[in-house]
Amino acid sequence: MRFNLVILMKIVILGFGAVGQGVTRVISLKREYLLDKYGLQLDIVAAVDRSGAALSENGLEPETLLETKAETGKLSQYPEYGVEGVSGLELLDEVEYDCLVEVTPTNIEDGEPALSHMQKAMEKGKDVVTSNKGPLALSFTKLAETAQKTGTNFKYEASVGGAMPIINLAHDTLAGSDVESVYGILNGTTNYILSRMAKEGSSYEQTLNEARELGIAETDPSQDVDGWDAACKIVILANSVLNRECALEDVKVEGISKITPEAMALAKKEGYLIKLIGEASQDVLEVSPRLVKEGSPFAVEGTLNVATLKTDLAEDVTVVGKGAGSIETASAILSDLLNIWNSG
Amino acid sequence: MRFNLVILMKIVILGFGAVGQGVTRVISLKREYLLDKYGLQLDIVAAVDRSGAALSENGLEPETLLETKAETGKLSQYPEYGVEGVSGLELLDEVEYDCLVEVTPTNIEDGEPALSHMQKAMEKGKDVVTSNKGPLALSFTKLAETAQKTGTNFKYEASVGGAMPIINLAHDTLAGSDVESVYGILNGTTNYILSRMAKEGSSYEQTLNEARELGIAETDPSQDVDGWDAACKIVILANSVLNRECALEDVKVEGISKITPEAMALAKKEGYLIKLIGEASQDVLEVSPRLVKEGSPFAVEGTLNVATLKTDLAEDVTVVGKGAGSIETASAILSDLLNIWNSG
Repeated sequence: MRFNLVILMKIVILGFGAVGQGVTRVISLKREYLLDKYGLQLDIVAAVDRSGAALSENGLEPETLLETKAETGKLSQYPEYGVEGVSGLELLDEVEYDCLVEVTPTNIEDGEPALSHMQKAMEKGKDVVTSNKGPLALSFTKLAETAQKTGTNFKYEASVGGAMPIINLAHDTLAGSDVESVYGILNGTTNYILSRMAKEGSSYEQTLNEARELGIAETDPSQDVDGWDAACKIVILANSVLNRECALEDVKVEGISKITPEAMALAKKEGYLIKLIGEASQDVLEVSPRLVKEGSPFAVEGTLNVATLKTDLAEDVTVVGKGAGSIETASAILSDLLNIWNSG
Repeated sequence: MRFNLVILMKIVILGFGAVGQGVTRVISLKREYLLDKYGLQLDIVAAVDRSGAALSENGLEPETLLETKAETGKLSQYPEYGVEGVSGLELLDEVEYDCLVEVTPTNIEDGEPALSHMQKAMEKGKDVVTSNKGPLALSFTKLAETAQKTGTNFKYEASVGGAMPIINLAHDTLAGSDVESVYGILNGTTNYILSRMAKEGSSYEQTLNEARELGIAETDPSQDVDGWDAACKIVILANSVLNRECALEDVKVEGISKITPEAMALAKKEGYLIKLIGEASQDVLEVSPRLVKEGSPFAVEGTLNVATLKTDLAEDVTVVGKGAGSIETASAILSDLLNIWNSG
């Protein structure tokens, strides 16, 4: 007879939109895989949305969480274990857990409520995994210091480029090389719009409207097209990969709304495309439209994200991946959870 | 007063061509960085070339190793610590060390002498890091079993695509996703030739001669242009990333010598390029010329390598990097050494 040791990791999910639901689905999909390969069981002991929470110290059923949300729109309607009106911050005092998965919507004004969630969890000695750009773009240094002080893991691969692995790539896979700069297309919506404009010769307004109809651009697309989403990511990369202490206010930001079909055509004639590029180095923090060469890794189309790490030894290393998507972003969160587990 | 703990890792370098010299240079360049950041000191206790060896249990001077090689062509001429005629296999019995860096030339006939070097080191409980494709393409299963049996680390990031990180990316960075297939341009020489042919409309023979003159193609370029180099890498990826047990003889291989300017022009007219593509999945093991779309990540030019991992959760993740180069390949070896150190 053989006994198998199973390690439980208890998780609280704050925020139950596309990413929170993706994480829940992935935990359900990968249950067997995680048990077989890692001897790890991920138990969701609480999940919170605007309506309240579902919580059970013995673990909630991922499928029931997803069904409850799909059918009623409210986690507080979770059978037996639903609670109305409880906030994320309150809940973090009441539940016993190992790791907070912070996936509430990004707020680039003050980073709340996510910032308080993360601080509170770490101060109680809990690990934090997040896809939430707001607190990181505004208060990276503070969060990193809290993690250091409390000896907790603070992981945020999903906050930059969804399923495009870049932060852990720089930290672990390229451990021997120093990263000198990061340069990339960090926003899928603008890449889609610019790719269509280059191909069709269409105007910015017309293409944006098409993207809205396809659900690629949001009804209010300003965070994407004005460059703020990419700027958040550049701040996160500058802090985490280049060890710079900086925040969103330090980034020079220019969006894509002034790009004309004529400018596109002119660039194309010389073998170039126009892309919205984010760049971070020790001297530069910038998001702006730039020329990139056709035939270079930056000539990618559609909603893809791409980023190049310029290193001292490995030279340029480029990664391309899906920048968004519920399951894709959740996969980055799962990788972070596994890396925490592996390091523990 | 503050004491700093320094961990010593004693290394034997077998093979002192471009990669062996690159590793030595990188160890010299990164001495301070490794001490500061990791508290790690890498000591080269022996280095071997065809002439013999330099060995000292207190560590050899990297700069003296490089100078001796540059000036005399023979490590056996290393001042005081040079020894003539000793073989790698003999040396592994005589020296005390922690990790073998196996960087002798790739031999795809029987994998020797590297295969015996690696087996011997692991059987004595030593870790192995290598860039050598031969033993892995011929005897991956055997080597992996030996590593498992002896509880040693066996790392080979540098064997596929030099500084393009792919193996550790799949294992660690994408830990939560299952990789279903790998698809890539895994040979820089052929990518250079095909990119030039597409651009200039020149013939295969003419372009190959140009590449030879530039030092991009070797005098005998058959391993590259006939697809065997890419086939070795596909075998390594199939074994390590897809958990397939296979060897070089299982790969269907076709090179690029039959590609005509006419075929190139025809493809281009429809928005395609011709590239030498390696593919591995549970059903496929193949290297052959294929059409790739302009504007896709595979449209990269020059000597770059690119590979896409198709995963269940993160969808397609693509990496692009320098496939060769002394320092670039050495950087992958250094990352492997650091990952061994981190896991230890």
